[in-house]
Amino acid sequence: MTSRPNTPQQPRVPQVEMHPQRWGDPAAATSLPDSARGLVELAFGLRETPAAEAATPPAPALDEALLDGLRAIVGEAHVHTDDALRVLRTRGKSTPDLLRARAGDLSDAPDAVVRPDGHDEVAAVLAWASEHRVAVVPFGGGTCVTGGLAARRDGYAGVVSLDLVRMKRLLAVDEVSMTATLEPGLRGPEAEALLAEHGLVLGHYPQSFQHASIGGFAATRSSGQSSAGYGRFDAMVVGLRAATPTGSLDLGTAPATAAGPDLRQVLLGSEGAFGVITAVTVRVRRLPEQKVYDGWRWPSFSAGADAMRALAQGGLLPTVLRLSDEAETAINLADPSSIGSDGDPGCLMIVGHEGTPEQVASRRAAVAAVLADLGGTDLGEGPGESWAHGRFNAPYLRDALLDVGVLVETLETATFWSNRERLHSDVKAALEATLGEGTLVLCHVSHVYETGCSLYFTVAARQGDDPQAQWHAAKVAASDAMIAAGATITHHHAVGTDHKPWLAQEIGEVGVRVLRAVKSELDPEGILNPGVLVP
Amino acid sequence: MTSRPNTPQQPRVPQVEMHPQRWGDPAAATSLPDSARGLVELAFGLRETPAAEAATPPAPALDEALLDGLRAIVGEAHVHTDDALRVLRTRGKSTPDLLRARAGDLSDAPDAVVRPDGHDEVAAVLAWASEHRVAVVPFGGGTCVTGGLAARRDGYAGVVSLDLVRMKRLLAVDEVSMTATLEPGLRGPEAEALLAEHGLVLGHYPQSFQHASIGGFAATRSSGQSSAGYGRFDAMVVGLRAATPTGSLDLGTAPATAAGPDLRQVLLGSEGAFGVITAVTVRVRRLPEQKVYDGWRWPSFSAGADAMRALAQGGLLPTVLRLSDEAETAINLADPSSIGSDGDPGCLMIVGHEGTPEQVASRRAAVAAVLADLGGTDLGEGPGESWAHGRFNAPYLRDALLDVGVLVETLETATFWSNRERLHSDVKAALEATLGEGTLVLCHVSHVYETGCSLYFTVAARQGDDPQAQWHAAKVAASDAMIAAGATITHHHAVGTDHKPWLAQEIGEVGVRVLRAVKSELDPEGILNPGVLVP
Repeated sequence: MTSRPNTPQQPRVPQVEMHPQRWGDPAAATSLPDSARGLVELAFGLRETPAAEAATPPAPALDEALLDGLRAIVGEAHVHTDDALRVLRTRGKSTPDLLRARAGDLSDAPDAVVRPDGHDEVAAVLAWASEHRVAVVPFGGGTCVTGGLAARRDGYAGVVSLDLVRMKRLLAVDEVSMTATLEPGLRGPEAEALLAEHGLVLGHYPQSFQHASIGGFAATRSSGQSSAGYGRFDAMVVGLRAATPTGSLDLGTAPATAAGPDLRQVLLGSEGAFGVITAVTVRVRRLPEQKVYDGWRWPSFSAGADAMRALAQGGLLPTVLRLSDEAETAINLADPSSIGSDGDPGCLMIVGHEGTPEQVASRRAAVAAVLADLGGTDLGEGPGESWAHGRFNAPYLRDALLDVGVLVETLETATFWSNRERLHSDVKAALEATLGEGTLVLCHVSHVYETGCSLYFTVAARQGDDPQAQWHAAKVAASDAMIAAGATITHHHAVGTDHKPWLAQEIGEVGVRVLRAVKSELDPEGILNPGVLVP
Repeated sequence: MTSRPNTPQQPRVPQVEMHPQRWGDPAAATSLPDSARGLVELAFGLRETPAAEAATPPAPALDEALLDGLRAIVGEAHVHTDDALRVLRTRGKSTPDLLRARAGDLSDAPDAVVRPDGHDEVAAVLAWASEHRVAVVPFGGGTCVTGGLAARRDGYAGVVSLDLVRMKRLLAVDEVSMTATLEPGLRGPEAEALLAEHGLVLGHYPQSFQHASIGGFAATRSSGQSSAGYGRFDAMVVGLRAATPTGSLDLGTAPATAAGPDLRQVLLGSEGAFGVITAVTVRVRRLPEQKVYDGWRWPSFSAGADAMRALAQGGLLPTVLRLSDEAETAINLADPSSIGSDGDPGCLMIVGHEGTPEQVASRRAAVAAVLADLGGTDLGEGPGESWAHGRFNAPYLRDALLDVGVLVETLETATFWSNRERLHSDVKAALEATLGEGTLVLCHVSHVYETGCSLYFTVAARQGDDPQAQWHAAKVAASDAMIAAGATITHHHAVGTDHKPWLAQEIGEVGVRVLRAVKSELDPEGILNPGVLVP
């Protein structure tokens, strides 16, 4: 990769650690807003369901002699066995992860947290782990919602969390090629701030943005709320470096190549099971001078989705394009009066434009002309601003609902346009049938392509006596419905452990054998994130 | 994959077979135009160098008992051992392939040509070949220019050409999702005609378009002359089916997914070494109502390339965008008078727009404004029409030049924008140093991305006594220069056998091990295109 080298830059402010039993910044944790309590009580009842007191994880399984090997690699100060950090590195933030954390279950806390600095130290840790058969769980932001941070212990001497927190450099910026090389431990806002100093932007804003990491974005094929304009994260990656137990990979000599299979696409989405991504070179863009988010109302989810399709197939995509179904529109509406006076909120679409004022103006006008022509109603900037204001907050609400005995989960999938309606109704029906009367299923489309789109479901139900079993039954029903409809098991949440039972149905037995062959070649001892991704 | 099934459709007119010693339709073969003879004589001399008389291939190595196994799978009528067809399935159309064909060398003719019809027959042929250790060379259009159709014989009972000529169906069209499922044996114009009946277009026009196949486009990551507007072929593929010796792969449940590594990207570019692609589902678009190709003049190659970069990074790409350097502009100019009156032709850029009249008009105006602002001179439609008229003809000229003792080869690569100038000068210098005084090196950019571009070189030199050795020395020098510059060994011609010596330097030893692991898993007997792609 050619890029203009510059002095590596690091973030100035340390990242806040997430609460071990909840999403996000502990200081931002909320209880259910008073305005919502009445509605929630009406729908699900209210039963205060507090999390258990903080428990103590099991004693570390790795002895000092073994850990001395790690200390020799990264330095004594960077091997941690204190309970506090081990608890913070226990699992991710899936609903089952949170249910277990809230129940005080710390049975799969890592035995140690190791913080290597740089590719060579990562490689040495992997060699050490292979020699001693210690499971390694790469840890970036810890925001995984599919069980990708809960490694198997059986058959291993122990589990270490490979914490990338010291690898937070902007390694290079190439303003001619418009690329930047980032270390994996950089969180979303940290990468954003470093790039902004160069007048650049990545444009990747998943809901986990405030806590998720560059390495995680790559390893899970993350997709952000501005994917219509900036693309999925995997589409931004032009090069990457990875350490594996059996050697290093340096990939990406050009934006595109015909030099065989694209091995970048084998590491992207590998969820720490093939190697640890130690640097990512991404396409960047100029910081937008202007951002405008408009609201549009549609009489139905189908009418709105057809309009999205028209934009995608007409080559007229805005930067942000999302559409809530009737139920989500009704529930999420911050200001129902803005939606229309006839009492029917319809379906809310957010249409965002970013760029120079000229780009925003011309694209906004062209998109508006198409949407108006197709029957949409322009609601102005109110709904868009409201959406932009709360865009990263939904996971906090999940905790607040769990606090009052409401089980909340999100699921997402994608399919081709002609299959959208079937997929929507089948998954909705599967969730309602499994979780019973009073279950609320909301849906939105937030990622669109010429040939299809994603569907993102939010489901809420009264929590039963065994919420883990309740969650599992719903997950099975929804996932079975996705596979039966010929859709993907996940559009942007990755496989982890939660989706693994369906992966073989999606990629077939031969596809699974390919994954296993790559895994065996790169990680013959099977120490990398065991139990995750590869069936 | 969800798509609206319809009756499979097949082309109405049989495809013309290419001349065994030359490119393309034998009826279209030309000798050097009189208008060019003088120039060529001045530059290289003229030495009539006719091809040898048609030779006879060696007797087939596979005995009747073995072939009966094949006949049982595909039917007696579809296993061919006649010399005429074996000769037509000998190698591809690289310059070394042609030099050997012209010398009468048919030593690596396949022992048989087998024509399966459908996925299951392909799978059965691969099982038969694995059992009997017979090498299988998948054959689509036969246009490969990197030695991808010249299989190793050593250690094998024989070699069969797996000819996909019977697999030419349009299997499905989904006009909602805008996808089409095509069989691999369809040639470019055949696929185009079938899609046009639905008002659809693929938009993939490599120089080999008239003869190359859908399967070949996928297996080699082909890129066409309209890649700026329609994308590379690999970017069009949303799904594919492949038969391997150990099972079948059906991939593509959505336009994008986070369900692990993208295995479509492992089969794309696999050059028949991992499996045989038996169906490809591609994104299609509406047939353009209007096509306009403009010429623009630039004072230098760098000025023109910077303008291409501005378009790509500004999100303003036309459908066709190509730029010739000073030498190529001067040589290829059909009508020098159109280029300017000051005697300096500068560098010619072709800027093509396709779409509805409204789309063409607005995009053309926006692009023209940027180009004019950056110092380009609008030459109108003359140069563009001239380019469009002759766009598929260059390979015929290569034969005409070989006829008069001029060795001609093309090479292509890609890199990030900041590395473009170095790559250009290094490859040019390497070719000139190796081939000696009087060597002509032309270059153009024909594929652009936000972060970089391709470089396509045409080199011509006086043919020496050992043209194979002469070619090899030049290939080594140019390829070494590409790798040393950090560029890719091939942007759209694939690896084949010619680029294989450099692949390990591009993807590294670990990357090679990944390819080998996948190959071993899917093709444990190593019967698929042995010697091609995998180092």
